[in-house]
Amino acid sequence: MQQVLDFLRNRQQTSVDELCEFLRIPSISADSAYSDSMQSCAAWVRNSMEAAGLRATIYPTDGHPIVYGELLRDPSLPTVLIYGHYDVQPPDPLELWTTPAFEPTERDGRLYARGATDDKGQLFTHLKSIEAWTQTHGELPVNIKFLIEGEEECGGIHLDAFLEQHQEMLRADVAVVSDTSQYGDGIPAITCGLRGIVAAEVRLRGPDHDLHSGIYGGSIANPLNALTAMCGALIDSAGRIQIPGFYEDVIDLTDEERQGYSELPFSVEGFLADTGSADIFGEEGWSTLERRTARPTCDINGISGGYAGEGPKTIVPSRAMAKITCRLVPDMKPEKILDSLEEFLRSRCPAGIQFEFHRYHGCEAFVFDPTSEWLNAARRAVAAAFGQEPVLFREGGSIPVVLSFKQILGVDTLLLGWGRNSDNLHSPNEHIHLQDFHRGTLASACLWQELASVSLAD
Amino acid sequence: MQQVLDFLRNRQQTSVDELCEFLRIPSISADSAYSDSMQSCAAWVRNSMEAAGLRATIYPTDGHPIVYGELLRDPSLPTVLIYGHYDVQPPDPLELWTTPAFEPTERDGRLYARGATDDKGQLFTHLKSIEAWTQTHGELPVNIKFLIEGEEECGGIHLDAFLEQHQEMLRADVAVVSDTSQYGDGIPAITCGLRGIVAAEVRLRGPDHDLHSGIYGGSIANPLNALTAMCGALIDSAGRIQIPGFYEDVIDLTDEERQGYSELPFSVEGFLADTGSADIFGEEGWSTLERRTARPTCDINGISGGYAGEGPKTIVPSRAMAKITCRLVPDMKPEKILDSLEEFLRSRCPAGIQFEFHRYHGCEAFVFDPTSEWLNAARRAVAAAFGQEPVLFREGGSIPVVLSFKQILGVDTLLLGWGRNSDNLHSPNEHIHLQDFHRGTLASACLWQELASVSLAD
Repeated sequence: MQQVLDFLRNRQQTSVDELCEFLRIPSISADSAYSDSMQSCAAWVRNSMEAAGLRATIYPTDGHPIVYGELLRDPSLPTVLIYGHYDVQPPDPLELWTTPAFEPTERDGRLYARGATDDKGQLFTHLKSIEAWTQTHGELPVNIKFLIEGEEECGGIHLDAFLEQHQEMLRADVAVVSDTSQYGDGIPAITCGLRGIVAAEVRLRGPDHDLHSGIYGGSIANPLNALTAMCGALIDSAGRIQIPGFYEDVIDLTDEERQGYSELPFSVEGFLADTGSADIFGEEGWSTLERRTARPTCDINGISGGYAGEGPKTIVPSRAMAKITCRLVPDMKPEKILDSLEEFLRSRCPAGIQFEFHRYHGCEAFVFDPTSEWLNAARRAVAAAFGQEPVLFREGGSIPVVLSFKQILGVDTLLLGWGRNSDNLHSPNEHIHLQDFHRGTLASACLWQELASVSLAD
Repeated sequence: MQQVLDFLRNRQQTSVDELCEFLRIPSISADSAYSDSMQSCAAWVRNSMEAAGLRATIYPTDGHPIVYGELLRDPSLPTVLIYGHYDVQPPDPLELWTTPAFEPTERDGRLYARGATDDKGQLFTHLKSIEAWTQTHGELPVNIKFLIEGEEECGGIHLDAFLEQHQEMLRADVAVVSDTSQYGDGIPAITCGLRGIVAAEVRLRGPDHDLHSGIYGGSIANPLNALTAMCGALIDSAGRIQIPGFYEDVIDLTDEERQGYSELPFSVEGFLADTGSADIFGEEGWSTLERRTARPTCDINGISGGYAGEGPKTIVPSRAMAKITCRLVPDMKPEKILDSLEEFLRSRCPAGIQFEFHRYHGCEAFVFDPTSEWLNAARRAVAAAFGQEPVLFREGGSIPVVLSFKQILGVDTLLLGWGRNSDNLHSPNEHIHLQDFHRGTLASACLWQELASVSLAD
């Protein structure tokens, strides 16, 4: 192991130089003017995989190509599927960049460029650590499958089809993704849970045209009165969601997990400043961090109906609409929640109102078993490289690839973020701290060794 | 009396010819291209008043002129203030008129023209009945004050100022307005009540920008969740409004009034066809007619917040807004209702949400004391002319002039409608049934006699 780490420490500048090459390619997936750059970037990634010792192939799709490389040693060893994306966000607004987005520049220990942290800089740590193993040992202690796509930033739809088509090729024991962040500056984190989601829209129709509220008010159901009565009953004043069975399948945080949450640094003032909100509010009995990440929600995302212009208008409106999403936590079932939500709303629909319930796609929450050996292996690797135990933390949102891996390949994902939330992801002056890049590379190198120790018996 | 009625019966064709002259003037108040016509029409009205025996004057305003005429006989007799408006709605869409809007045409016992019923044809009945009295008796049994404005159809603001400025001149014991309709074809009506109204807007602000519902959902109050919870609590499932004290000052219908309502012809099927609604709904224990006219309401007229476009959007919105109106019945107090509504909503506002409550203008309900001698006098006059007892009926909406008369002049208004709801008011092919015009004129002639008998002692 020491040889691998020494190799990496001795070649830090080379690694940064190579990363700069990668960052110079304007692989903007959302802009068709850059499709040649996307092709060049995919080729660069393949070459880089091959330089690291992987056998690599470019797979064309109807969108941007997927690059896949593997280094298989022994079926009895754990097989790790690594994921990253070589495409980047558009760099606009260009005038806010101190130095050009595709001319990587080092300042104050940071490397500035579009993609520096999201995700070129982070995925490159794994290529470098693999290279270090192959250069020093000729092989890795695990089987490696490395999948790098080019449509993460443009809502691409071709990855899932690729996963479906290549299930056998991609079969693995555990997945690794470095596309998240540390918990705070210098506080490494393993994201061990993501909330799921269901989304729906309720549409009500009362009279077939807006009516004079003087002549008709009080004698037929008003769709807006009905809609607010339905939606307003969803949550009580203590922040508890009233949909029957909503909490039935929720796996509460363990005392140990809550203890972990309580020890995380968190500033309410900073949180309120970020959100521009005057106060916190949520389900009684849970902290803000718990509410954001480990508790289910029910939010009305949008609403419309009647007259919303200036001044009063005395009508009984014809129509009303609300969009609702629920964030789910383990082990809530999306379809069950949608069924119960629909019934909850429908049962409150008064006579004379036509009720329509439209379901958008949903997905389950993801959580990594906190007692898993894979997770413990990752903890040890991160702790060794960062000199500090990583925080085990859940995120409130969803990461689609994690769910695709779970649903299509049946594999759980270790979310290991080396960068920081303050790295200006998706904004001008995106950067990565070189310290984070280097210790991420070391953590990655340690990770293969630690994962190799996990028994495949379970 | 018989002389007066005979006079009118003998001169029906003359009256119709004169009405046609009136109807030929395109007195469209909303269109400044017709301001000359407005002046001509005011002059025509003044001349017509003088022909009827009134002393008439045109009062210029900053908008269209007001015509006022009076015939004062004896201060010990009742003084009646009559109101009408000489302006009309624009005739568009012109192509839907069978004959031109300003070329009055008789077909099937109806006179077609813009303003035929609203309000030239109806107000002209009073001019003709006054003329019949002065021509046959040289005087009327009451003092007459006749006010005809030209801004009713264009939301004019000059009438109230005129009332304020001429309170002494306009002082009266009772007012008469013929700008409503019969209850049904051939069923005469006296509109003896109007609902009042209060209007408000509630505006909520949570975070100062829309937030990602995954990252923040559940940890700060969502303005749309808050708004629907507030507004959704306004009415229970039995249609009862939950604002504290809302019904406290409501004067319920008497058993006699309810009996009267129950005897009115009303078709639920027709009502549903008119509204395009699938069913009726309202406060339990009251009929549809009662709910529409004699019960207070609370309607959300419009709502907005968050994302209302296509598909889902996973945000916690920054803002939310709802417009609310309550229709009031006697003796509800607008300010008291607004105070209670505001407190009802504000008390449900969760931590972190800024609450703003904007009040629009409101007005009290109007009801004519059903035991009033004025009302009984009007009933007798209508019954005599129509050969049928009039229905005493309340309207669900408001008529601003009635409230202005009440508030500025302290006088109650008898709303006597000769026309029909099916006369195409505000639509192409507006008309008046000549039978209605003639019996309206007779009823008006009888009215002065009947009102003369009311003792001023009370």
